[in-house]
Amino acid sequence: MSIRSLAKCGRPTLSMSRSIVTRTAVKRYTSSSSTQISREGKSHRNTLLKAGFAGFLGAVLYNVGRDYYSSSADEIKLDGNPMKYMTDTYGVFWIPMRAIEEDHPENPMRIRMAVWVKNLQDHIVKTLETIESSHISSNSNIPPGKFLRDAWLRPEGGEGSSCVLSNGRVFEKAGVNVSVVHGMLPPTGQKSMLPDHPSLKPKDYSVPFFATGLSIVIHPINPHVPTVHLNYRYFEISDPENPSKPVSWWFGGGSDLTPCYLVEEDCKHFHQVLKDACDEHHKGFWKKYKKWCDEYFYVKHRGESRGIGGIFFDDLTDVSEEHGQSKNKEELFDFVKSASSAFLPAYVPIVLKNKDRKWTEEEKRWQQLRRGRYVEFNLVYDRGTKFGLATPGARVESILMSLPETARWEYMSDMGKEGTEEGKLMEVLRHPREWV
Amino acid sequence: MSIRSLAKCGRPTLSMSRSIVTRTAVKRYTSSSSTQISREGKSHRNTLLKAGFAGFLGAVLYNVGRDYYSSSADEIKLDGNPMKYMTDTYGVFWIPMRAIEEDHPENPMRIRMAVWVKNLQDHIVKTLETIESSHISSNSNIPPGKFLRDAWLRPEGGEGSSCVLSNGRVFEKAGVNVSVVHGMLPPTGQKSMLPDHPSLKPKDYSVPFFATGLSIVIHPINPHVPTVHLNYRYFEISDPENPSKPVSWWFGGGSDLTPCYLVEEDCKHFHQVLKDACDEHHKGFWKKYKKWCDEYFYVKHRGESRGIGGIFFDDLTDVSEEHGQSKNKEELFDFVKSASSAFLPAYVPIVLKNKDRKWTEEEKRWQQLRRGRYVEFNLVYDRGTKFGLATPGARVESILMSLPETARWEYMSDMGKEGTEEGKLMEVLRHPREWV
Repeated sequence: MSIRSLAKCGRPTLSMSRSIVTRTAVKRYTSSSSTQISREGKSHRNTLLKAGFAGFLGAVLYNVGRDYYSSSADEIKLDGNPMKYMTDTYGVFWIPMRAIEEDHPENPMRIRMAVWVKNLQDHIVKTLETIESSHISSNSNIPPGKFLRDAWLRPEGGEGSSCVLSNGRVFEKAGVNVSVVHGMLPPTGQKSMLPDHPSLKPKDYSVPFFATGLSIVIHPINPHVPTVHLNYRYFEISDPENPSKPVSWWFGGGSDLTPCYLVEEDCKHFHQVLKDACDEHHKGFWKKYKKWCDEYFYVKHRGESRGIGGIFFDDLTDVSEEHGQSKNKEELFDFVKSASSAFLPAYVPIVLKNKDRKWTEEEKRWQQLRRGRYVEFNLVYDRGTKFGLATPGARVESILMSLPETARWEYMSDMGKEGTEEGKLMEVLRHPREWV
Repeated sequence: MSIRSLAKCGRPTLSMSRSIVTRTAVKRYTSSSSTQISREGKSHRNTLLKAGFAGFLGAVLYNVGRDYYSSSADEIKLDGNPMKYMTDTYGVFWIPMRAIEEDHPENPMRIRMAVWVKNLQDHIVKTLETIESSHISSNSNIPPGKFLRDAWLRPEGGEGSSCVLSNGRVFEKAGVNVSVVHGMLPPTGQKSMLPDHPSLKPKDYSVPFFATGLSIVIHPINPHVPTVHLNYRYFEISDPENPSKPVSWWFGGGSDLTPCYLVEEDCKHFHQVLKDACDEHHKGFWKKYKKWCDEYFYVKHRGESRGIGGIFFDDLTDVSEEHGQSKNKEELFDFVKSASSAFLPAYVPIVLKNKDRKWTEEEKRWQQLRRGRYVEFNLVYDRGTKFGLATPGARVESILMSLPETARWEYMSDMGKEGTEEGKLMEVLRHPREWV
C-alpha cells in the first residue's frame, strides 16, 4: 500500500494521532519558524548564518515555531474535547489509523519515527517515575518526583511535548522532550546544512522539511549517580510537488554519560550495552560512533571531554558510503530503534546501583563544579543550543531544559588534582578511554 | 620631551615597573598569543574568524599569550629578587622612571593607562577588603575575605595580575584583573576589527599592537546587594618601523549594575554618579553611553537586559566624530580616568546600605536564578569571553572569573511573575528605564 493510497483512506490527522491535546487555556509562545527566516531582517539572518545552519535540526527539534499553544500539566488529555487550534502534525493531510498504530514498512518514515520517539518518551518517563516512587528517601518529606507534562502545538505544522521533573528524590532535574515539526526550508538553510549533510542537494527555492526527535537530559541529586544525555532524530527534505516523497533524509543521535566520580565497571557497562546495540546492526558502527561522541562532546577551552562518552552519529542515510556501510532505510531505522532502546538498560542499572550511596559536602561541591562545565559545553559548543538561542523567538525554556538545576564556578579550584578521586575522573576526561 | 628622547634616558623596564614579580616556583600556562594566529591550522583560524576579531581586545586583555608565568599568592613580592624570566611589559625597551611614577602628558599613553589601571586595581582591591574586614558577620566563623593575588608574566611581552576573592563575608566572588599585553596583529586580525573600529587602517602585513585594561566583576552574597561589572581598556596599533609611535588607538569601557531586587534610589544613585563623571567631560557622553550599555548587555534569547545598565563605550578616539565630539587624546584619557574613578562612589554606597539586610531562602533562590542569566549572557554573548574561549590556549581561569560562584536554572520557574518583588525587576529588565 503506497503513501498515496494510504492517504485516500485516511481520516484527519488530529483525531487519530495519539497527540496529547489541550482543551482550554492554551499558552502561547511568540516565536518564528524556520520558514520565516527569509522574511526576517538582515541582522537576524546574519545571526542565523553565523550560528550556522549546522545546528538547524537541533533547533527545529527545540520547538521552533511562530506560535505554540502549550497546555499546563493538569489540562493534558489523551483524548480531549475538540481542539481549539487545528494543527497538521505530520505534514501529510490524511493519515490512516494504521500508520500510527502499527509500525509497518509501507508507512511513511516520518510517522514511524515520530510514533517511535513518542512511545519511547512515554516508556522512559514512566520508568523514571517508577525509580522515583520506589526510592526510599532518607528525607521522607520529599515526595517522589513526577514529570510536568507540557504539550504544545505548532499551528503551521507540528506538535511536541516537554516532560520535566524537578527536585525529586533521585533526580534533581530530568527532561524528556519530543518534537515533530515541519515547514519550508529556504535556500540559505539548505546550503548551510550541506557541510554536515553531503547527501543534501540544495535548491534555489524553499523545500519542505520534516524533523522529529527525542531528547533527554537527566541530572541526579547524588554525586555518585552520573548525568546522562540522549538525542535521536530523523530529518527529511521532500519534493515540493509531493510532500509525501522524501528526496533526502537522515537519522542522527546517540547517548552519553557524564559522571562526577569514576566507577570503571559502570563506564564499561554503559559502553557495552551501547556497543551490543550497535554490533547487532553493523560491526563498524560502534567504533566510529564512540569516537564521534568523544570528539563532539569536547569542552575545547578546558581541554577535557564533557563526560566518559557513549555514541554519537549524524547524517546516517542510505545514499552515502561515508559510514562504512550501505544499509537501506529500513535497516537504519532498525538500528536507531535498537540504539535508542538501549538507553534504559545502559543507564538505569547505574542509577539503581549508586543512588543509595552516601555523599559528603565536598563530593556535592565537586558535582556542582562539574555541572558548571556541563553548562559551559551546552552554552558555548552545543550546536542545537547555539542555533536555538540565535533563532528569533525560539522557546528558550525547552532549549535550556538541558542545563542543570544548580552549578558552580570557582577560581583556581583546588578540586580535581592528581591522586584524588576527583583527579581520577579528570584523567579520563583528558584522555578518553576505550572502555570495552 | 618626545618618546624617543625619553627612551634614551631610560633604564630596563622590569627593574622600574611596579610589576608584582615572582621569585620562585612560577606556574606556566600553555597558551597561544594572538600573534600566533597566522601560524595556527585552518580550523583554529576559522574558529577565530567565526568568533570575530570584534572580541579581540577583550581576549588579549584576558591574558592571551603562549606562556604565562604566574605566581601563587604567597610568592608575590612588590620588590622581589631578580626575576627568573625577563619580560618586556610595555613594548618599548627603555622607559624612564618618571613615565611610571608620574602621569605626564609627554609620556606614552600605553604606560600612563597601564599605570592608571594598576593603581586603580590596588585601590579597589583594598577598598573591597576593607568592606570585608569591617563587616560584622552574623556567622562569626567566616573570616573576612582576602583577595588571592595571582601575578603573571608573558615572556613575549606583557604582564598582569588577577586578584580574586572567594567566599568572604559580603562578597561571594570578586575578581579585579589587570592586563598589559603587546605583540603582532596579523592582517586578518586587523581586518576583522574594522567594523567596530573604523579608524583602523588595515595593512597587508602584521603590525604591533598594545592593549591594557582593568576588568572587574563582583558577585555579593546577599541577594539585596547587586552584582557589578567594570571594564576599561586602551588599545594601540603602532608603526612597525617605530613601535613607540601609535598610528591608531582607542579607549573603551564602562560599568553596569545587576541587582536581583530593584531599589529605585540605588539605581538612580548608580546612574547619577556615572552621569556626573561623564557630564564633566562632554554633555553628550552619558546619554550615548547609557544607551550603548542597554544595547550591549542584552540577553537576546530571554528578551531582557542583564541588569539595570550603566555606561558602555568603545572605539573612543580623536580622529572620529562618531561620538559627537572631537576631543584630543589627553581629554579622552581624562574622561576615562573620571569614569573609572566613579566606580567606587557609584557602587560602594549601595553595598554598605544593603549588606546588612536580611534575606529569605526564596530571595536567595531568585538570586541564583538571576545568576543563571548572568552566566547565559557571559557564555553566549559577551564578545571578550567568546573570543577568549575560541583562542587556543587562552587562560580559562581568568576568562571565566566573571562567572558567579553558584547559579541555578529552573524549568518554567514560578518566580519573577507580575505583582511580585521579583516581577518588578523583570519589568525593568524588559523595558530599560531612564534613571536620571
